[in-house]
Amino acid sequence: MSINNHMDKLFYPRSIAIIEAASKREWQVLGIKNLNYQGNLYLVSKNEEEIAGIKCYQDISDLPDKIDHAIIVVKRDRLRETILQCIEKKFYTLHIFTAGGAEFDEEGIKIEREIYEIIKKSDMRVIGPNCMGIYSPEGKISYGPEFSKKVGKVSFVSQSGDLTTQYILRSNYNGVFFSKVASIGNSIDLTISDFINYFNADEKTEIIGVYFEGFPRFQEKEGLKFWNALKNVKKPLLLLRGGISHQGKRAAVSHTGTLAANDRIWDAIYKQTRALRVETFEELVDSTLAFNLCQNLYPKVKSIVLITWSGGKAVIATDQLVRLGIDVPEIAPSTQEKMKKLISIGSVKNPLDLPWIVRREKFPEICKLAIKEDYIGGSIMEAGTWRNHDERFFKYFENILKIYEISKQLKKPFLISLPPSQFYQNREKFKKMLIEKNIPVFLNIKRAAKAFLNLFEYQRKLRLF
Amino acid sequence: MSINNHMDKLFYPRSIAIIEAASKREWQVLGIKNLNYQGNLYLVSKNEEEIAGIKCYQDISDLPDKIDHAIIVVKRDRLRETILQCIEKKFYTLHIFTAGGAEFDEEGIKIEREIYEIIKKSDMRVIGPNCMGIYSPEGKISYGPEFSKKVGKVSFVSQSGDLTTQYILRSNYNGVFFSKVASIGNSIDLTISDFINYFNADEKTEIIGVYFEGFPRFQEKEGLKFWNALKNVKKPLLLLRGGISHQGKRAAVSHTGTLAANDRIWDAIYKQTRALRVETFEELVDSTLAFNLCQNLYPKVKSIVLITWSGGKAVIATDQLVRLGIDVPEIAPSTQEKMKKLISIGSVKNPLDLPWIVRREKFPEICKLAIKEDYIGGSIMEAGTWRNHDERFFKYFENILKIYEISKQLKKPFLISLPPSQFYQNREKFKKMLIEKNIPVFLNIKRAAKAFLNLFEYQRKLRLF
Repeated sequence: MSINNHMDKLFYPRSIAIIEAASKREWQVLGIKNLNYQGNLYLVSKNEEEIAGIKCYQDISDLPDKIDHAIIVVKRDRLRETILQCIEKKFYTLHIFTAGGAEFDEEGIKIEREIYEIIKKSDMRVIGPNCMGIYSPEGKISYGPEFSKKVGKVSFVSQSGDLTTQYILRSNYNGVFFSKVASIGNSIDLTISDFINYFNADEKTEIIGVYFEGFPRFQEKEGLKFWNALKNVKKPLLLLRGGISHQGKRAAVSHTGTLAANDRIWDAIYKQTRALRVETFEELVDSTLAFNLCQNLYPKVKSIVLITWSGGKAVIATDQLVRLGIDVPEIAPSTQEKMKKLISIGSVKNPLDLPWIVRREKFPEICKLAIKEDYIGGSIMEAGTWRNHDERFFKYFENILKIYEISKQLKKPFLISLPPSQFYQNREKFKKMLIEKNIPVFLNIKRAAKAFLNLFEYQRKLRLF
Repeated sequence: MSINNHMDKLFYPRSIAIIEAASKREWQVLGIKNLNYQGNLYLVSKNEEEIAGIKCYQDISDLPDKIDHAIIVVKRDRLRETILQCIEKKFYTLHIFTAGGAEFDEEGIKIEREIYEIIKKSDMRVIGPNCMGIYSPEGKISYGPEFSKKVGKVSFVSQSGDLTTQYILRSNYNGVFFSKVASIGNSIDLTISDFINYFNADEKTEIIGVYFEGFPRFQEKEGLKFWNALKNVKKPLLLLRGGISHQGKRAAVSHTGTLAANDRIWDAIYKQTRALRVETFEELVDSTLAFNLCQNLYPKVKSIVLITWSGGKAVIATDQLVRLGIDVPEIAPSTQEKMKKLISIGSVKNPLDLPWIVRREKFPEICKLAIKEDYIGGSIMEAGTWRNHDERFFKYFENILKIYEISKQLKKPFLISLPPSQFYQNREKFKKMLIEKNIPVFLNIKRAAKAFLNLFEYQRKLRLF
């Protein structure tokens, strides 16, 4: 059976088994139940009769053969025998949840080597050990009961379970939904590159995210496979890498027991493939949001119009943008003349500092004059949270929508910075209203700027390869 | 009269006049009324009889002489005559709110020069033009009706009004309160260094914040004065500077019309004085919070214990910390042995990745073993927002308090990163609970780390000068 068939069984399983299920890990069952899973869900438990309303089987041997996806949660000293049982029952795919492998001690390395050899000889494909597994809202399987039922266009593969959980929750909270997610931990069988290849071919996936910590211990060819996978990718691929520093590498070995890559290869990867360099968790969350909402709004020039609410913050933000390599060019004098005809006070050079007129009809008009200039790649606007969502606020909101529509017609991204506020409930509402209108929102101008850079970088790559 | 007497009159005025007051700027009156101002508040308006319940005078000549503080809001072409009237009435201090000075055009520069010459010859001291003025909760004067009535220990002087407003609101929201704040805009008379000197001598001020954009146009000696003021400062001084890049300078000239300083002097300032380099608005907010809560908890070593909730985020955060120059050293093997006796799984090397035991009694014990090591300067813990504030949550919260108490006894800072969460209301509550217990909270590990660096840097400076 091809790897793609196995992948299909991971993300769209018609039958699932959890070995051993336990009430104290009821969430594993609920993750699947809550998504209204329609296939057969089998639980195996020696100690419990029923979990979350589902009857338990005593032993794997009581299960039917050829189960699509089995989740193994036994202690590490029972891994070998359990895996052998699964092979005998011709299960298609396995998720080894069990931790205590190569990330923990010498004994763990030994166990991993043993099960690696067993799996290699079988037809079964495996994710893990030491991982959370699969979230596929379309396939109605989820390892977390809190994840959204909504199907989206982002797919993600990761070597950290909890990072994956936080990424899904933060993205859901940002109105971003997923097609397929795999937390694969120590990845002794299926590797990150296997998932990249699958996501690249998958029509439902439009944006790929990767959290990489190191190459698996027993797969010597994964380096080259990874490189080739990235070379072939034709979609935006956000690549967050952990374990870069010496001390970070130590943390990575304790975490997934994988071996970190040679540092030099990474510059080549980011230079010669569509992989985009993401340096922090926050940037991963932000850029996912940006790509989710700004498809086909990629900036052609690395320069922006900055629209602010505060002269001082405009000055600091300009410094920050320039430091990041983004230009904040002075608007052409002839255009400034046109803009000045519409106002009596405020600066229109860029940044546009026009807090007095944000509710007036001429506000989007003035912004348009600057945004449509051909040396401008897009715009970032710092918005404010209002104490009251009254008529005045809604006029302001409408103006923002107008600037978005103008930007969209010009095929330029329009990003909003909405800083924290003591009126946090209104901030939440406002943020939601903006995202529902497809306008991405960030916590500050710098974070919006980092997302802008990734959008720019992707359109540059689009032209190159 | 000495400059300190004038400063006292700015921050503790016994009489205030607003010239011209207007209902559309009622907030200017309310800012003072809401703080229960006890002195005499005079409003001057040619058009209105009463504003916010206070009777208006027709003209400055109707006011008593020797008013402590007058706020001037007339159009720029009436500035000259109004200031002359104020001098005639022997007013002590003036706040020129009026914009349209050197920041706007050539005519504005001309007007500023004229009024500068007039003021120079008078006994009156002036802040502005183009600024928001004074907030002094103890003196019961405030330019913003939303600012807290609570008196705190931070004083701030700034060349941006709206940045100041946002800084006050964000700090209040963080549980940080102010002693004295002055937004002084184009600063043609009283300058940033005058305020630094005053705050340095002021017993009520324990932390100083400065937003600097450029030296005033008409005061040639301000550079040297600024340098001397900083040399003399004996308190933590957070210095945020705008207008560093070429394009940022352009924005600064449009904003306050001041002249940017030679770049080279800044390295010397940060190296040879107690001024701490703050590069972003967010860092200013964060470091103010850290200094407000961590007085006398300054790290002696630039290295931390990182306590996390997620292996993957621990790896990325370690990379970030190392990039910032913070060490995340492996805990000594003998100490690790002691720690391992308390757990069966998880990493104790540093980062400590122990999500399973955060509610157990041994959690603070394990942390203590690492934090008390003499090569450790302090700790950063990534906390999570809980879906329910139930008994389990409160056990977790108690453990955090224990780690804080342990850190405090060891005189080491303990900083919390609490990322955004879909349970944002619980996040708000949790944040407030932590800050009330004097534990500073940041949006992510990197921002906590930047605050840690400033705390470290300050204790280093403490030993040097």
